[in-house]
Amino acid sequence: MKKILPFFLFTSLLPIVAPAQQIPWGEMKLKSPEYNEPDSSITLRLEAPEAAKVQIKGDFTNGLPVDMNKDANGIWELNIGKLPSDLYGYSVLVDGLQMLDPSNVYIMRDNNVLFNMLIVPGERGRLFSTNNVPHGSVANVWYHSDALNMDRRMTVYTPAGYNSGNGKRYPVLYLLHGLGGDEEAWTERGRVPQILDNMIATGKVEPMIVVMPNGNSPQQAAPGSNSDGLFVQPTSRLDYITGAFESSFPEIVKFIDENYSTVAEKSGRAIAGLSMGGMHTRAISLNNPEMFDYVALFSAAINPTLRNQTEIYENVPYKLKIQFNNAPKMYWIGIGRKDGLMEANDKNRELMDQLGLPYTYYESEGGHSWTNWRDYLTIILPKLFKR
Amino acid sequence: MKKILPFFLFTSLLPIVAPAQQIPWGEMKLKSPEYNEPDSSITLRLEAPEAAKVQIKGDFTNGLPVDMNKDANGIWELNIGKLPSDLYGYSVLVDGLQMLDPSNVYIMRDNNVLFNMLIVPGERGRLFSTNNVPHGSVANVWYHSDALNMDRRMTVYTPAGYNSGNGKRYPVLYLLHGLGGDEEAWTERGRVPQILDNMIATGKVEPMIVVMPNGNSPQQAAPGSNSDGLFVQPTSRLDYITGAFESSFPEIVKFIDENYSTVAEKSGRAIAGLSMGGMHTRAISLNNPEMFDYVALFSAAINPTLRNQTEIYENVPYKLKIQFNNAPKMYWIGIGRKDGLMEANDKNRELMDQLGLPYTYYESEGGHSWTNWRDYLTIILPKLFKR
Repeated sequence: MKKILPFFLFTSLLPIVAPAQQIPWGEMKLKSPEYNEPDSSITLRLEAPEAAKVQIKGDFTNGLPVDMNKDANGIWELNIGKLPSDLYGYSVLVDGLQMLDPSNVYIMRDNNVLFNMLIVPGERGRLFSTNNVPHGSVANVWYHSDALNMDRRMTVYTPAGYNSGNGKRYPVLYLLHGLGGDEEAWTERGRVPQILDNMIATGKVEPMIVVMPNGNSPQQAAPGSNSDGLFVQPTSRLDYITGAFESSFPEIVKFIDENYSTVAEKSGRAIAGLSMGGMHTRAISLNNPEMFDYVALFSAAINPTLRNQTEIYENVPYKLKIQFNNAPKMYWIGIGRKDGLMEANDKNRELMDQLGLPYTYYESEGGHSWTNWRDYLTIILPKLFKR
Repeated sequence: MKKILPFFLFTSLLPIVAPAQQIPWGEMKLKSPEYNEPDSSITLRLEAPEAAKVQIKGDFTNGLPVDMNKDANGIWELNIGKLPSDLYGYSVLVDGLQMLDPSNVYIMRDNNVLFNMLIVPGERGRLFSTNNVPHGSVANVWYHSDALNMDRRMTVYTPAGYNSGNGKRYPVLYLLHGLGGDEEAWTERGRVPQILDNMIATGKVEPMIVVMPNGNSPQQAAPGSNSDGLFVQPTSRLDYITGAFESSFPEIVKFIDENYSTVAEKSGRAIAGLSMGGMHTRAISLNNPEMFDYVALFSAAINPTLRNQTEIYENVPYKLKIQFNNAPKMYWIGIGRKDGLMEANDKNRELMDQLGLPYTYYESEGGHSWTNWRDYLTIILPKLFKR
């Protein structure tokens, strides 16, 4: 009865607009995460009187569980201190069972795991937050792929003012996800709408369209939004890496140029991708040398692990030379020092050096992480589409 | 170490495309929910060896906890039998602590609570699922409200073929959420994109635009997508009911007519809403008698609980008569027999009867629930915009 009582109390105050069946929620009992103004620290809390051990595990603990402390009322608490301003993911472990912090409904999905989201205030956090600036629009858009023989979904960001009917044409950034991701990855974990809104508002980034397609060639759309239904669990599918998505890419560009007000030429197109998406980016730009003036590889998986070797990954040095005959205005390579893909990236740069092909190299701290990929995006955005 | 081991095993198989830091996920260990083909029953599972009691609570248990059974390996299991085909929400209680089923990443938010989603196969479930039919697009769109003096967000569904550039004009359904909801409620809990895609594909429903604004007048956008930031928890805010949203509604219609290819007249506009949104629907259609030819109240909160009484809720009988002078083609009222708002709806119908105003009345089983609101939507859609 203890759990039901406040519910009836609440509804009795709202006889007209809030009858019992509608409202499974009242005020939340606990504040978690809580930002402590005096010292800028953050406190996490969870009520679990029956639990023997409750831990927090997050980007800020290097993924290792850290014990929370229980008070006399069964409330577990942990002050995680003052963290650098950024976006962090975290989970709770209750007697070893990983779950979300029930007091924090702000979550993000990474393949088959949900994480709580925490934005620590400050300059970096502000970049990943919704602020009072003009907002672009984010749409789930379906297109037909002749090459893959199915309707497929992409996410499209159009900047504030796009619909103003002034006939303005916008450049397009094609932004690709990694293995285990899908067309929701860059908006959900990458914070693309917030980053673009905020950076465009400063005037340092050109208003642009950002197209985030689904790079898993046998998949129509993100798990839960495709016709596989909800009994199929997301997983990491190596058989999603077939070369077919990369080969089909020109039909995506065609669809966007036909349906959006774009600068439909090389100078108005950029392509960037993380990990597997970096591999896609390299292959797509390589095989379509007149398509993109801006290319960026984020922690790129240089060497493909394909089920069937396809033409798109063959004759790389020859194609690179052709691509650079009419050199892209930017060829950017970024990777973290601790990234397992460092060696493959080194070899790729050696190849480009041998061929005398110019690129910009950015080596960051850290490894193969969304923290780096959001950073890399903020670094390349001001470089795109400058006249 | 037990938790870390499979992770390294996994990455060692994927040295190139899947370095350690990228992949917090492997295959899921448990299947939950699992659909059992032989008898069409469904099994839920959770691993919690330390827990003393694990329960399931969902739409299919009338919100009451039902015990799961533990096996020797600490896996809890419950066969919930064969349920009528529908969309259900559920949660897990682990020693009383409410959490999501970690094997099921398909979730929906209702204000400050997250639920797992379960679609039981069959006719009704198919209506709420993504199927291989042409898909419309769903966009988060920001507009400026002069009346409310802020940028605000709405969700806009445009049907398949909308962008085909054939100049076709589409009718518009304005669909309003209830107290505690926001512009994400009808897409997330209401399954609007799936319902519209599926019903339009049968040919029984006109292709239409569906506009789902945020009806909480002081709120820019859904929690997490507004500039309040992620430390502010969603809650039920009675002070969101001010009358200001309803008064500002014509600027939403103006925005849509200016930015979309609409049938910009009474015969091309419908408005419907649930609970508080039903109250909004009644008031908006009442105060703009030339705006909508189709009006539908779903479990409407007839009597407003406003902080400040506004003109928009005054002189109702007089305004009703004016509205019906040029009668809407449809005025539909639906409510469940167990709904706490039944009495207020009865009184409203008595008033309309006294005034001799025609309407369609639909009384369903159940109460104030999303099950009913999804049903009501599927009932009214085929009636809209028929010539």
